[in-house]
Amino acid sequence: MVQAASAPSEKVKLKRAYKKGHYDKETIYKILDAQPVCSIAFCKNEMPYNVPTLQWRQGNVLYWHGSSASHAMKAQSGMDVCVNVTILDGFVMARSGFYHSVNFRSVTLYGKAMKVEEKDQKKQALIAMIENLFPGRNETLRPIKDKELKATTLLCMPIEEASAKIRTGPPVDDDEDYKLPIWAGIISVKTASGMPESDEKLVQGIPVPRSYSKLSL
Amino acid sequence: MVQAASAPSEKVKLKRAYKKGHYDKETIYKILDAQPVCSIAFCKNEMPYNVPTLQWRQGNVLYWHGSSASHAMKAQSGMDVCVNVTILDGFVMARSGFYHSVNFRSVTLYGKAMKVEEKDQKKQALIAMIENLFPGRNETLRPIKDKELKATTLLCMPIEEASAKIRTGPPVDDDEDYKLPIWAGIISVKTASGMPESDEKLVQGIPVPRSYSKLSL
Repeated sequence: MVQAASAPSEKVKLKRAYKKGHYDKETIYKILDAQPVCSIAFCKNEMPYNVPTLQWRQGNVLYWHGSSASHAMKAQSGMDVCVNVTILDGFVMARSGFYHSVNFRSVTLYGKAMKVEEKDQKKQALIAMIENLFPGRNETLRPIKDKELKATTLLCMPIEEASAKIRTGPPVDDDEDYKLPIWAGIISVKTASGMPESDEKLVQGIPVPRSYSKLSL
Repeated sequence: MVQAASAPSEKVKLKRAYKKGHYDKETIYKILDAQPVCSIAFCKNEMPYNVPTLQWRQGNVLYWHGSSASHAMKAQSGMDVCVNVTILDGFVMARSGFYHSVNFRSVTLYGKAMKVEEKDQKKQALIAMIENLFPGRNETLRPIKDKELKATTLLCMPIEEASAKIRTGPPVDDDEDYKLPIWAGIISVKTASGMPESDEKLVQGIPVPRSYSKLSL
């Protein structure tokens, strides 16, 4: 499933800080799979828009969805978009303000948002969205209705023009600053999901599922 | 500091899901102050770009910064941008796939990115960036050098055209689905910072600071 790394296009290639750049599918997939939250940038009448939503992946295709009534979904359909996914891993505390930084994993993708009209592909992608996050969840659910499929706009994009940017490790200070009596180091940041909390309106006797994989970025 | 809520402009006003929309400065400031990670969307030659970075706030002004050599910073300067900040608070697990959702807090801002050239304003804003995240940190640091100020581009934008979008609470299912024997509820998501980890190159005898406020979204 993971393609061989190809030469990055001029658009995605990091111009500076090039050591932080990664273009292989394995690295890109791993970040996309870890962080469902993304933001979608698009232009309309030469003005920028920026919509947060959830993304998910099936093979080499990135998906996101929204209400068919959504102005933002209509505006993106068939248009160029730039998708960003970012995970904050920690604060990098240097000996000077200038070298303070963050450890992070980020993916940026460019492409045209294509509307998925075919019913089965649409259904399978929506099922995959839940399955990726909570394996086994779909088979417990009431099936999708046709009117729900119609009320949902599904957009997708091949994962082609993509780059990952990653920073890890300790602060990097000016040589002469290492001797200063200033605390320096890392303050890590973690995002994780908690235990399932049952809805008050739950039918009595339904056990809380333990199988849902915990999100941990 | 918090201004009276004014009528939202047509651009920021939520067209759908309008109950999730908030336009008061207090709500908007609180989300901006909680989540430093943002994404900045801008257009160049009618193509969308989407850059993740850290934002911070001083009064009613939003700031972000980058290297003066950065192509993205140059491309944004003086241009229209759309900034988004999003905090994922939980997965909303409904009785059907269609009503699955997320609890979240999000702010979207529109405006022109203005370059801050004035040296003192620039210095104060960069100090505020660290002070907002880690109160007391600046006074322990080696002072900012002039060449570091020059190597940094600082952009800002008044917090004027802004909206917050918030979802909280349990799943909302179709009336007839509440009787189904399907588990439903919330899986909360938390982002938090850990304890400071000292750099290996630290001068011996420097205590690990305990005063840095913990990030907890």
